[in-house]
Amino acid sequence: MRCNVVAVGTELLLGQIVDTNSAVIGERLAAAGINCHVQYKVGDNQDRLERLLRDALTEADALVVCGGLGPTHDDLTRESIAAVMGVPLEHDEGVATTIRDLFAARGRAMAPNNLRQAMVPHGATVIPQTRGTAPGLICPVRVGGHDRVVYAVPGVPHEMVDMIERAVVPDLCRRAGETGTIVSRTLKTWGESESGLNQRLDGVIADLDQAGNPTLAFLASGWDGMKVRLTARASTAAQAVVLLDHWESVVREEVGEHVYGVDEDTMESVVLELLRRRGWSLGLAESVTGGLVAGRLTDVPGASDVLRGSVVSYASEVKFDLLGVPDGPVVSEAAALAMAAGACRVLGSDVGLSLTGVAGPAEQDGQPVGTLCIGLITPMVRHTTTVRMPGQRRQMRELSVITAFDLLRRHCS
Amino acid sequence: MRCNVVAVGTELLLGQIVDTNSAVIGERLAAAGINCHVQYKVGDNQDRLERLLRDALTEADALVVCGGLGPTHDDLTRESIAAVMGVPLEHDEGVATTIRDLFAARGRAMAPNNLRQAMVPHGATVIPQTRGTAPGLICPVRVGGHDRVVYAVPGVPHEMVDMIERAVVPDLCRRAGETGTIVSRTLKTWGESESGLNQRLDGVIADLDQAGNPTLAFLASGWDGMKVRLTARASTAAQAVVLLDHWESVVREEVGEHVYGVDEDTMESVVLELLRRRGWSLGLAESVTGGLVAGRLTDVPGASDVLRGSVVSYASEVKFDLLGVPDGPVVSEAAALAMAAGACRVLGSDVGLSLTGVAGPAEQDGQPVGTLCIGLITPMVRHTTTVRMPGQRRQMRELSVITAFDLLRRHCS
Repeated sequence: MRCNVVAVGTELLLGQIVDTNSAVIGERLAAAGINCHVQYKVGDNQDRLERLLRDALTEADALVVCGGLGPTHDDLTRESIAAVMGVPLEHDEGVATTIRDLFAARGRAMAPNNLRQAMVPHGATVIPQTRGTAPGLICPVRVGGHDRVVYAVPGVPHEMVDMIERAVVPDLCRRAGETGTIVSRTLKTWGESESGLNQRLDGVIADLDQAGNPTLAFLASGWDGMKVRLTARASTAAQAVVLLDHWESVVREEVGEHVYGVDEDTMESVVLELLRRRGWSLGLAESVTGGLVAGRLTDVPGASDVLRGSVVSYASEVKFDLLGVPDGPVVSEAAALAMAAGACRVLGSDVGLSLTGVAGPAEQDGQPVGTLCIGLITPMVRHTTTVRMPGQRRQMRELSVITAFDLLRRHCS
Repeated sequence: MRCNVVAVGTELLLGQIVDTNSAVIGERLAAAGINCHVQYKVGDNQDRLERLLRDALTEADALVVCGGLGPTHDDLTRESIAAVMGVPLEHDEGVATTIRDLFAARGRAMAPNNLRQAMVPHGATVIPQTRGTAPGLICPVRVGGHDRVVYAVPGVPHEMVDMIERAVVPDLCRRAGETGTIVSRTLKTWGESESGLNQRLDGVIADLDQAGNPTLAFLASGWDGMKVRLTARASTAAQAVVLLDHWESVVREEVGEHVYGVDEDTMESVVLELLRRRGWSLGLAESVTGGLVAGRLTDVPGASDVLRGSVVSYASEVKFDLLGVPDGPVVSEAAALAMAAGACRVLGSDVGLSLTGVAGPAEQDGQPVGTLCIGLITPMVRHTTTVRMPGQRRQMRELSVITAFDLLRRHCS
C-alpha cells in the first residue's frame, strides 16, 4: 500500500508558512507500515490541484490531501476532488446541522459561506469533525482501471492529526488487508547516542527482527533526545498493549536509565512530576541559559506547585550581591554550587539548580565557549559537574537546559 | 519563468525532519517575481528521483533540487540529474582541490568518499562552495524540444540560502530576460493588523501599482509581527537601494511608529540597542512569562552590557518577600509596578520591566485567562498597562513577551 501526501495552500509555496503537516502525516504512515514515496505542495488553484491529483494518483494507491477545506473562495479541495472523481458536490444536511450547532454553541453568528463545508462529493464518506467545522472526506476514485482513494483532511494541525489517527490510518490498514490494529509506544531517552542505543539494543533488535512484531525504530528528535518507538500489530488494542508492555520492559532492561519518559511526557513534565512526588519545591539560578530553564518549566500548566522561581543572574554583580557567590571566576563549579545555594535561600526552595557557562561568542574566565557548570542541591545531595557543549550560542544554550533537566531527573528518581 | 522545487531525503518523508528549505526557496523565488507552482519531497532512491525529475520538468522551466549532494552512498542527486541529462558524471579536479584544501585547513583527514562531491555531470556549471564541501550545480536539460535547467544545492540550510541568493536567483533572472538586479528590504512592524496596515498604506499601494517598481507585499510572520517587503528592480544594486530608500521613507510616513526594525533586526536586538544608546541597564521581573523575556534577550550576543538579570517570581511569596510587592492581588497594575521597582532595586538596574498575568488553565485573582499587566519604570517614566491576550497558554505567553518588548521599545525610542 502506497499513500502519498498533498499539502494545499499558496502560503506554503510562498514560504509564509512552513508545511509541518506532511511531515506529521509521513511519520504516522511510516509507523503503520504504509509507504509514502512523494509529498507535494500546491497552491490554491483548482486547475493545478486537479492536474496534480490526477498525476499523483497514477503513482500511488492512496492520497492524503491536507488543507483547502475551509469556507472561503480559495478553499478548493472539495471541488478538485469531485472533478477528479467525475461526480457533483452535494449538500449534506447532517454536516450542515453540525456546523450550525457549533456556531450556536459558541454564541456566534454563522456566515452563510460556512455551509460550503457541508458540500460533499457524491459517493464520498464523511469523517465527522470533532474539533472544528470542516469535516474530512474519504473519496473513492477509479483511475486507469484501478481503485484508488483520496482522503481530505483540514490543514489545522490538531484537527488533521485527529482525523489521520481516528479515520485515515485505520481505513488504509483495512484496505491493505490489515485486519487487526496498530498501536505505537515511544520511549524518550537522553544521554546516549543513536549508535550507542543501537549497540545496547543489538540483541533486542535481532529478536524483534525474528519475531517481526512489534517493530522498533529510532527517531533522532533534537531537544527531545533519541526516541525508541515500538509499533505492535494485534487483533485488538488490548493485545497490542500486552505486547508493548512486554517489549518495553525488555528495552528498559538495556537502556532504562536513559529513558526519561513515554509518549506525551516531556523532560520538563517529568522533572516537575518527580519533584511533586518528593514534595520538593524548586528554585533556579540561571546565568548562561538566561531564563530558558524557567521558561520551559512554566510552559507546563501547574508548574506553580513546584517551581518557586528563578534568579537570572546575568551580570556578575547579581551573582555576588543577590546570590552570595564568593569573589572569583563565575564560570566554575564553586560558583555554580554557591548559585544553587543562593537560589534555595533567596527563593525559599528545597531544591536549588544552577547553570553558569560560556555561550560565546568569546571565552570567559579562561573557559572556552561551550563550557557549562551545573550546581544541584537537594535535601539529599550537593552535586556539581562541568560539561563541554558543542555548537553555536543558541544550540549550546538549549543543550544546557536539557542537560540540567536530565541531571535533576537522575537525582530525583 | 516557472521554477519548481524538489527536496530530497527519506528523513523528510518519514517526518524525522521538517523540510523548511522549500519554504525558504519559495520565498526567495517569489521575491524575485518567479512563479513556483509545485514543491516536491522525495526519498533517497535514484529510480524515484529520476522519474520525479523527468515528470517535474514537463511542468516547469526550471527546478531547484535541494539535498542529496553529500558524500555518502545515499546521496544520489548528482547521479539522477546526470541520468536525466543523458550525460556521464566527470571528475572535476578544481572542486576536488577545494575539498582537499578544506579538510587540510581544518586539520582533519579526508575520507575518500568525499571526492564523490567532485563528480559533475558533463555540461553542468559548478556553483563554487564557500561554506561546506559540496558544490552546487547548474545543469542544462533538453526536454521535449525545450531548454530547461536544473539547479542542485546542498540541503544544509545556510549553504542552500547562500547558493540560492548568490547563483540560482541571478541565473533564473538572466534566463527570464531580466537584465538588472533585484534587491528587497523588509520593514518589520508590531501593533497593527494586516488589514490595518493595508488601509493606512492604501494610497502608497495605489502609487506603487501604477509605478510597478518596487513591489510591496505583506507577510504575516507570527511572533515577528507583520512584515512589509519592498522589492526593487534596477540596473545596479546602488540604483535599487536609492529606490528602496525613497519608498521606505514613504511607507514610514504612514506606519512609522509601528516599524520596529529592518531586515535582520529582531524585537530583542532593537530593544537592547535602544537601551545601549541611552546608557540604561535593564532588570526584569517576570511572573506569567516565567523567564521567556530574559531568555529571548540573552539569545542576542552582547546582551550582557545591558541586561542585569531577571527575577522570575513564579510563587506569590517571591513577589512579596524578594520584590517587595505589597499584599493584595498579584495580577494587577499595582503589583506590576511594584515588581518593576523591585527589579530595579534587587538587580541594580536603571530600567525595570515586569509582567504578571494569567496564562491559564484557570483564572486567578478574579482575572480571566489572557490578562496581562505590564509595569515599566525608566529614569523618565513610570508606566503600567493591562492587556487582554487571545489564545492558549503558550500563545498567550509568547504574545506577552512581544507586547512587553514593544512597550519598552516605544518608551526608549
